[in-house]
Amino acid sequence: MDLISNGWFSEVQNELWPGQSFSLKVKKVLHKEDSKFQNIQIVETENYGMCLILDGIIQCTLRDEFSYQEMISFLPLCLHPNPKKVLIVGGGDGGVAREVVKHPQVEEVHQVEIDDRVVELSKQYLPSMACGFENPKLKLTIGDGFEYMKNHSNEFDVIITDSSDPVGPAVSLFQESYYELMKNALKDGGIVCSQGGSFWLDIAHIKKTMDGCGQHFAKVAYAVTSVPSYPCGHIGFVIGSLNKNQVFKTPTKKFENSEIDSLNLKYYSSEVHASAFALPRWVEKHLYE
Amino acid sequence: MDLISNGWFSEVQNELWPGQSFSLKVKKVLHKEDSKFQNIQIVETENYGMCLILDGIIQCTLRDEFSYQEMISFLPLCLHPNPKKVLIVGGGDGGVAREVVKHPQVEEVHQVEIDDRVVELSKQYLPSMACGFENPKLKLTIGDGFEYMKNHSNEFDVIITDSSDPVGPAVSLFQESYYELMKNALKDGGIVCSQGGSFWLDIAHIKKTMDGCGQHFAKVAYAVTSVPSYPCGHIGFVIGSLNKNQVFKTPTKKFENSEIDSLNLKYYSSEVHASAFALPRWVEKHLYE
Repeated sequence: MDLISNGWFSEVQNELWPGQSFSLKVKKVLHKEDSKFQNIQIVETENYGMCLILDGIIQCTLRDEFSYQEMISFLPLCLHPNPKKVLIVGGGDGGVAREVVKHPQVEEVHQVEIDDRVVELSKQYLPSMACGFENPKLKLTIGDGFEYMKNHSNEFDVIITDSSDPVGPAVSLFQESYYELMKNALKDGGIVCSQGGSFWLDIAHIKKTMDGCGQHFAKVAYAVTSVPSYPCGHIGFVIGSLNKNQVFKTPTKKFENSEIDSLNLKYYSSEVHASAFALPRWVEKHLYE
Repeated sequence: MDLISNGWFSEVQNELWPGQSFSLKVKKVLHKEDSKFQNIQIVETENYGMCLILDGIIQCTLRDEFSYQEMISFLPLCLHPNPKKVLIVGGGDGGVAREVVKHPQVEEVHQVEIDDRVVELSKQYLPSMACGFENPKLKLTIGDGFEYMKNHSNEFDVIITDSSDPVGPAVSLFQESYYELMKNALKDGGIVCSQGGSFWLDIAHIKKTMDGCGQHFAKVAYAVTSVPSYPCGHIGFVIGSLNKNQVFKTPTKKFENSEIDSLNLKYYSSEVHASAFALPRWVEKHLYE
């Protein structure tokens, strides 16, 4: 798991992405510890900035994190007609919170993260991400997202699940039972958006997750964004809506590019939103036909 | 350059993508040689199939090559109202030829590849790509694309430049002078599409190439496709059109999904075509504003 060798960190995960590995040249290892839940490393890389690694898997690098954080936030927020109350599950680096609070209709953001050590280390080493926690709209709870959901019903407009991969502490967040809990926690017309892997790696798992979501949500879709430091250079999102008339590629809230710029968004735009749902033909067939 | 260590091949290129590296687990090294132009390796990988490597840089793997080959071919072909005569520069693995000949309007395909050893080795080790050379529509010339272009004017509807990266034999294919030559080789309304790197790595170089293209072409755009075995997990295309009314995201020739399937296309579709031109906000600003 601690694969730093000859000055390079290599991300090896034989179960999730066998036979391939992305490596980053390391300037300095800043912090290493085993929390109650996972191994945490903070590494300064030569060309990708600060990097947070959990159980040997890259969670974010400062160079490209904005792609993931903006898209996992603004895809669901802009699909909802009035996203006032938002729940974030996971996201201990603060990046999703940082983006969600930008949205002009968002009034309250509740976040539940299982590992307080990730939050504390992000505040220390990733301040440009952890600044999300300082926003007065945000209330952070340390705890289990699955358990949190059981105690909240009919409360939220949007639920964003920014989890690690389906090995380790996040595995329950990909299961049908989690989508059932999320449905109950949402108000009418609510929308969920969850980290959803790569169609190059495990399209069967994505389909299974979408089918589980579809048992509780009227409409389900998959979208992707480019993130070079994630396996296969991108990551997808499973998005469910309780609105049976939802058209995912058409944002309900369209921003002009001038608004995009004044919100300090660098990746997301209404045009990018639409394109994120256009999937390669073989993926489209597998997931939707 | 020959970076096979502990059973893994690592793609290291300190000039083009410093501080990052993609690695593939190797089953067997099938062939290695230095041709007149470059070092050629054919490697069988554990999870990506056969892999062609030139000067230490992955050119294609059987697992994901169809994304690149289909998009570099069908993006320009479907933008042209009547792409009868096509030129391919480079493409010695045969993959682009394989795709181009599928297009129902294409009658003649001329290809010029500098390194006959790449062609021969592809026929031997990558038959599912080199099959492109067997099509009766195709005429292959071994030679320099830049020189070839000087001897052909007003001939082609579409020119596809499937080159290696701008270090080594392909460097001249990214220069403005090459776009000037291509313009002269095209008929009225002609379209060019060239391999164009990654916006995560060298957006300045992409802009420079597009500006060079724009000196000779009425309209220029950039599009991307997902390819996990390329640096940053994707690759872009610089596309120029002599038609001043060209709208790149709208294919002139739209295929229904049933036609896409009967053409045995696995990546490209008319919807994917449109989405390929939607660029992250910061990229859109840098390249177009």
